Amino acid sequence: MFDISPLQKLRSQYTPKIPVALNGAWRLCTADVPTPDAEAKAIAMMFPHTSGMPRVYLRNSETETSRQEKPLNVGILLSGGQAPGGHNVISGLFDGLKSLHPDSRLYGFLMGPDGLINHKYIELTEALIAPYRNAGGFDMIGSGRTKLEKKEQFDAALLILKHLDISALVIVGGDDSNTNAAILAEYYRSINAGVQIIGCPKTIDGDLKGREIECSFGFDTATKLYAELIGNVQRDCVSAKKYWHFIKLMGRTASHITLECALKCQPNIAIISEDVKAKDWRIADLVEYIAEVIAKRAERGLMYGIALIPEGILEFLPSFRRLIDELNDYLSRPESDHIKRLARLERTAFVAEHLKPENASLLLSLPQYVALQLLEDRDPHGNVQVSKIETEVLLVELVKERLSQMAAAGRYQGKFAALTHFFGYEGRCSFPSNFDADYCYSLGRTAVALISEGLTGYMATVSNTTHPADHCVAGGVPFTRLMHLERRAGLAKPVIRKSLVDLQGAPFAYFADHRSRWESEDCYVYPGPLVFYGPREICDEPTLTLRLEIDGTPFFE
Amino acid sequence: MFDISPLQKLRSQYTPKIPVALNGAWRLCTADVPTPDAEAKAIAMMFPHTSGMPRVYLRNSETETSRQEKPLNVGILLSGGQAPGGHNVISGLFDGLKSLHPDSRLYGFLMGPDGLINHKYIELTEALIAPYRNAGGFDMIGSGRTKLEKKEQFDAALLILKHLDISALVIVGGDDSNTNAAILAEYYRSINAGVQIIGCPKTIDGDLKGREIECSFGFDTATKLYAELIGNVQRDCVSAKKYWHFIKLMGRTASHITLECALKCQPNIAIISEDVKAKDWRIADLVEYIAEVIAKRAERGLMYGIALIPEGILEFLPSFRRLIDELNDYLSRPESDHIKRLARLERTAFVAEHLKPENASLLLSLPQYVALQLLEDRDPHGNVQVSKIETEVLLVELVKERLSQMAAAGRYQGKFAALTHFFGYEGRCSFPSNFDADYCYSLGRTAVALISEGLTGYMATVSNTTHPADHCVAGGVPFTRLMHLERRAGLAKPVIRKSLVDLQGAPFAYFADHRSRWESEDCYVYPGPLVFYGPREICDEPTLTLRLEIDGTPFFE
Repeated sequence: MFDISPLQKLRSQYTPKIPVALNGAWRLCTADVPTPDAEAKAIAMMFPHTSGMPRVYLRNSETETSRQEKPLNVGILLSGGQAPGGHNVISGLFDGLKSLHPDSRLYGFLMGPDGLINHKYIELTEALIAPYRNAGGFDMIGSGRTKLEKKEQFDAALLILKHLDISALVIVGGDDSNTNAAILAEYYRSINAGVQIIGCPKTIDGDLKGREIECSFGFDTATKLYAELIGNVQRDCVSAKKYWHFIKLMGRTASHITLECALKCQPNIAIISEDVKAKDWRIADLVEYIAEVIAKRAERGLMYGIALIPEGILEFLPSFRRLIDELNDYLSRPESDHIKRLARLERTAFVAEHLKPENASLLLSLPQYVALQLLEDRDPHGNVQVSKIETEVLLVELVKERLSQMAAAGRYQGKFAALTHFFGYEGRCSFPSNFDADYCYSLGRTAVALISEGLTGYMATVSNTTHPADHCVAGGVPFTRLMHLERRAGLAKPVIRKSLVDLQGAPFAYFADHRSRWESEDCYVYPGPLVFYGPREICDEPTLTLRLEIDGTPFFE
Repeated sequence: MFDISPLQKLRSQYTPKIPVALNGAWRLCTADVPTPDAEAKAIAMMFPHTSGMPRVYLRNSETETSRQEKPLNVGILLSGGQAPGGHNVISGLFDGLKSLHPDSRLYGFLMGPDGLINHKYIELTEALIAPYRNAGGFDMIGSGRTKLEKKEQFDAALLILKHLDISALVIVGGDDSNTNAAILAEYYRSINAGVQIIGCPKTIDGDLKGREIECSFGFDTATKLYAELIGNVQRDCVSAKKYWHFIKLMGRTASHITLECALKCQPNIAIISEDVKAKDWRIADLVEYIAEVIAKRAERGLMYGIALIPEGILEFLPSFRRLIDELNDYLSRPESDHIKRLARLERTAFVAEHLKPENASLLLSLPQYVALQLLEDRDPHGNVQVSKIETEVLLVELVKERLSQMAAAGRYQGKFAALTHFFGYEGRCSFPSNFDADYCYSLGRTAVALISEGLTGYMATVSNTTHPADHCVAGGVPFTRLMHLERRAGLAKPVIRKSLVDLQGAPFAYFADHRSRWESEDCYVYPGPLVFYGPREICDEPTLTLRLEIDGTPFFE
């Protein structure tokens, strides 16, 4: 057999498209530094060496040359969950370094920050990188979830960086990892360590974006893959006409994935956590909304449908959040140990007696096994593990119960049979879409440019992403420009803001304008699989989220 | 927004490739009828009007014309679960009929056999068919699971067939539906009804195949989709290096899907039900095998892996089958009602006392909740619902237990964390692969040819499927040639044989030759998504099962 598939082989030969400035020689342009507001001033105090720097862009240059006199050694590490395109950041970095000077070297730290701290690394060569070009996964060097945030870690890292004569480290990660990259950059600058730090925005959840960063990589591919599967289930649904499919999607802290999939597929129901939170819905309101849509469709003879549920929905419900907070508090007290001496079926009622009435009644309204799961299944810090609840299954049960009540009251006549799905892991390591392959490779090439310009404390950016890749603009934004202050444990902590779904933004507005029609009619769209070869409109399109955010319309130009 | 996706639009314009004889005029060739053996003779007695007919092939003809003098009206119905390509059978049928005579008509019976019996139908026009060309799903006319097997149904159907002046009915279904199509063909012939019956082989499970039928449609697409997802999970697995993924795949009565996915992806473990049955394994043996592979990998420092599990595995285990049989028997007896009066936790032990020792000990060895599910969750016929057991979850639990025992005995040192997946519905309604799009469209065109030749009681066939579509051979095989006798409720019933994985066949042999290496090393292959456009080796390839069965090698020519 082939130990690599025909597509693996073909994809490894794909040449990513890059901003024109990266093809030849570039010229670094700087934008004006805006006058800092109070928050920016506070952040500048915490980052004296890496704040107040300008946003930069790389423009095409006819005259200047981008070759280096001397070789440049760079290190890279991947942090956190996999996202399609990670290997392309590496190959972009490698090709960029080699084009600057053929003796430049790229070192990959193994299994994320651990490799940096514990000095586990490999030198990345063309032979090693070749089979991973345009391939999914992070397996070339691995990734890890260790947080790089302590001075001892920074110092341990510096030993190996110096040993390998590495002048810059590229950190690929989400908001947390890039926040830590910012702190590392500031620290190395403060001690004149001579190591630059450049970040790259990664996360399939799409919650690392904003005015300065159009999108995080992996979001495009993951949503294309989930949308394919949702489209297939929609086809199944409308062919068989007998099931409601409740589909849980990744996205604990933001609902961008669910929103993008809803725009792509036009399901009957898509729950957007941020929307539900803004409405201050209780679980009962959520269940009521779903049940009403089901009843409305049943009246039209449609006993089937599709509901998309973001995995973080429960934690977004303020009332549920309050229950969890009080449970965490109560269960940490010694007196709560008493519940272990009770029969399992008595535990919920016992705990409920010790909670505020609102929280007690919510706890008692949950199916017994869910309530017990909350009481018994706790993480190493003693906290209730909301993520272990199979939200999609819970919602089906509660909706079923609500529909029975409505039927008894003569408000619903219909049959309700439901199937549940969770689309998660299958989307994190797909072959990257052309968009992500181009975007990530460009990010890697951009990082090299920023490094060669001597910058540190910057995130690499590629903008104008709804246009063909050669019209995109490479650049960099200082980490500190992405930061804001969050109160954590009583202290104001500078962090890179997690970007939630903007209820005033164009993507949500488009969804909100259409959802009522999608609820009652069958407007299903079938996106089909990821496409790599063919006309541009099937293989190079960005997400509808980006189209709406940047161009204001989902339609092609 | 687009109410259809760009890919939907593009795919609707794809022109399926067909055997050369279907492009122009054909000539019907007949093969010799083999001398019947005893079973064939018995079957011939039951099908006096539709047995003893020859296998037929359509050859290209320079001279004969395939146009009809008069229009030809044909009906079609889809039976059973969805499979990618169903719409292409319809469009092939439509185009074939129109090319015979422009006034020919095609009627689609709605929601499967129900539409035929209850006279629900639509006339299929080019406008109606156009958007469904090369699209997934069965939603153009729907499908259903009603069995078409009673004389009253046949007579009710004849009324509408005659009313619409339909001279042939095409039935698209699996082994059961085609068995019933055979009975219908015989009945209509016996009463000179003047309606021909032609079948088409459909099922993603791939268990309708044999000497005369190379494959059923949908298997190619479904396995390509599952293999994409498995490949993605494999990438995730080898990137994170911390989980075992247990992936359940469709296939209750045969393991072709699991085998094909194993050939495509080279996972560490793939359980083939037929293999396990042949070895007469108990659950404990299966668990032992999986645990041994995990331990073997852990010794090499690999605390992760991929295991593929066919959904029907439990029912293939002879010892489990015996437990289920005795449970069905015991639970149907009035005395078993007593268990309802027992506390839930006492029920398993009580029932075990009334079973044979071997079955009792198996029941008691299952996790409590699985045992209870078997006792409490019964179908409308009172039978235990094995399919409701989450086999992949059960196996993880049993393996975990076994690994603890091995650890205690010093035979295993390692960490075992597992995630479970079920890939099912997302594969049934995908856009058909080019293979299935071509194959199904060709089946539809072939059915028209068989009809115009006046044949009835035939299944449409397309052979030589590992070659480019124009080199494939259209033809037909009498239903009775596919039948054998099965004892059901004491009677010998003629049925189309369900084709299980052949342990002597080339696909299983290839797997068996390689699995030991795949167990201990990481030989993961990443097939990537379904590809429609590009070089032939990525977009027109048949399954590896077909390559091995027909060409004896998985390699390209």
